[in-house]
Amino acid sequence: MTAPKRLSGVLAPVVTPFKSDLSPDRARYVRHCKWLLANGCQGLAVFGTNSEANSLSVEERMVLLETLVQEGVPADRLMPGTGCCALTDSVRLTAHATALGCAGVLMLPPFYYKGVSDEGLYRNFAEVIERVGDARLQLYLYHIPPVSQVPITLGLIERLLKNFPGTVAGVKDSSGDWNNTKAMLDAFAKSSFDVFAGSEVFLLDNMKNGGKGCITATGNINPGAINRLFENWRGSNAEALQKDITATRGVMQKYPMMAALKAVIAHFGRDPDWATVRPPLVELTPAQNKSLMAELEPRGFEMPGLAVASATATA
Amino acid sequence: MTAPKRLSGVLAPVVTPFKSDLSPDRARYVRHCKWLLANGCQGLAVFGTNSEANSLSVEERMVLLETLVQEGVPADRLMPGTGCCALTDSVRLTAHATALGCAGVLMLPPFYYKGVSDEGLYRNFAEVIERVGDARLQLYLYHIPPVSQVPITLGLIERLLKNFPGTVAGVKDSSGDWNNTKAMLDAFAKSSFDVFAGSEVFLLDNMKNGGKGCITATGNINPGAINRLFENWRGSNAEALQKDITATRGVMQKYPMMAALKAVIAHFGRDPDWATVRPPLVELTPAQNKSLMAELEPRGFEMPGLAVASATATA
Repeated sequence: MTAPKRLSGVLAPVVTPFKSDLSPDRARYVRHCKWLLANGCQGLAVFGTNSEANSLSVEERMVLLETLVQEGVPADRLMPGTGCCALTDSVRLTAHATALGCAGVLMLPPFYYKGVSDEGLYRNFAEVIERVGDARLQLYLYHIPPVSQVPITLGLIERLLKNFPGTVAGVKDSSGDWNNTKAMLDAFAKSSFDVFAGSEVFLLDNMKNGGKGCITATGNINPGAINRLFENWRGSNAEALQKDITATRGVMQKYPMMAALKAVIAHFGRDPDWATVRPPLVELTPAQNKSLMAELEPRGFEMPGLAVASATATA
Repeated sequence: MTAPKRLSGVLAPVVTPFKSDLSPDRARYVRHCKWLLANGCQGLAVFGTNSEANSLSVEERMVLLETLVQEGVPADRLMPGTGCCALTDSVRLTAHATALGCAGVLMLPPFYYKGVSDEGLYRNFAEVIERVGDARLQLYLYHIPPVSQVPITLGLIERLLKNFPGTVAGVKDSSGDWNNTKAMLDAFAKSSFDVFAGSEVFLLDNMKNGGKGCITATGNINPGAINRLFENWRGSNAEALQKDITATRGVMQKYPMMAALKAVIAHFGRDPDWATVRPPLVELTPAQNKSLMAELEPRGFEMPGLAVASATATA
């Protein structure tokens, strides 16, 4: 078996809906994934930071992934997060995703211990690759030091790429630091190492420098506009498209992101139950919710077809 | 069923031995736990930071805990760590430990998301307590901001104590900040809230201010000397005992703690396999190992009976 075709474009770290008892809501999850693929997302980075993935057990993630595939979401559009604190969990999730035919996995470093060495992180990723032992595995490294507090350095990438060519496929850079993304592009973009920006704010710059797209929280609510830039980044209106999506991102960033994404889906999908988050997160306050919608609506922000899909599915 | 008797004294966050394939080594684990209880530890805070607990899956922890109880380690001496990023994992581990009759559980806050609110953390702990729904549960909060990056504030403790009296039993303060430990003692020690220092460096101060002992990494290797201070903290030689254990701690702190603890057990137990750690940690270099032993041996440091126990068990 050979590795699947590489993903590029806009990927959403899909937010995970919960029922009132805080269990994952599979029906709403499938519906949102299908809406994203029909509205601009080339792929779904399920189980990312914005998915509250680390608030889910290994078993809960496996059931959700199997549900997506069973319900007709193409596995070759999926890049699930599979990096856990425990090596054994990372191996289990990565093997499971690869066996299901996923396009790749997006892997956090083990993030409990701080100040660990590149040698220790190298051993972690190498053990996962060797234990999974599947030529189809496409491993994307997840660099998000503001949250994980454990960085993926250029030296670590170089060593992994050298020893596991064809398996180490790329990175999502959520450092928020364009200079770091640029350094990754300069060092590795020519070595079949696909760099995804962690925010659409850097999408145009990333494409101009050999990147492959972005994996972005706001891909959950604004995939059409972000994809228009991806498809037209060489066009004369690229700067204007970038300016527009950056502005929408700017509105969202004033609020706690995960609760805000769910609030927007609840509002524009006319489906209030979507607002539920798992502890330790909390939902937006009514005042935050009102203020957020009052900023988005005058911008002409919309999520086409979402309310209809929701009404049909729950009828 | 009623709550078990509260623990006090010296507790070790027991280091977890691994085989060469990185799977937990149950035989060495049981042996070390029994050595600790026979040599000064009143209790075992298994699955703490120094146990590499977050490098273990939920299932691996459950098997190890069941093994201890089956092999005759009294459950009422155990305070396993059960706080995970995922609420469902924390509930599962806490219910399991409580059903086994453990003296209590030591619970990290969910530690992936940073900058979360006290409201979100309150909901996390409250959900665990309510879902476990067992009057025997004794919940100790684990404050270790240098690693978890998510603090347990005085306000959070106050709210939990008020709403779950008799269940919220205490705290391990690994902030390394005596002023914080003192504030916890001043605010809550009279409310049946048991404060354990996270290092023996603060043991005498903690006891003088109404604390219950310490839960300390070096309890794994130096339990006898630390326990001598615990038992004699009102005595005339208490300052001298404190000075001695602080000095030993000072030697250990020059090295990566978890690898150093295992290196010491491997050396003094004449059992080199003990040195194995799981990624992302790495073992001491030969030079570090040599230097550490060269500092400990002239101090008269010893681990009485450890080598004999090891030789007998592996014979």
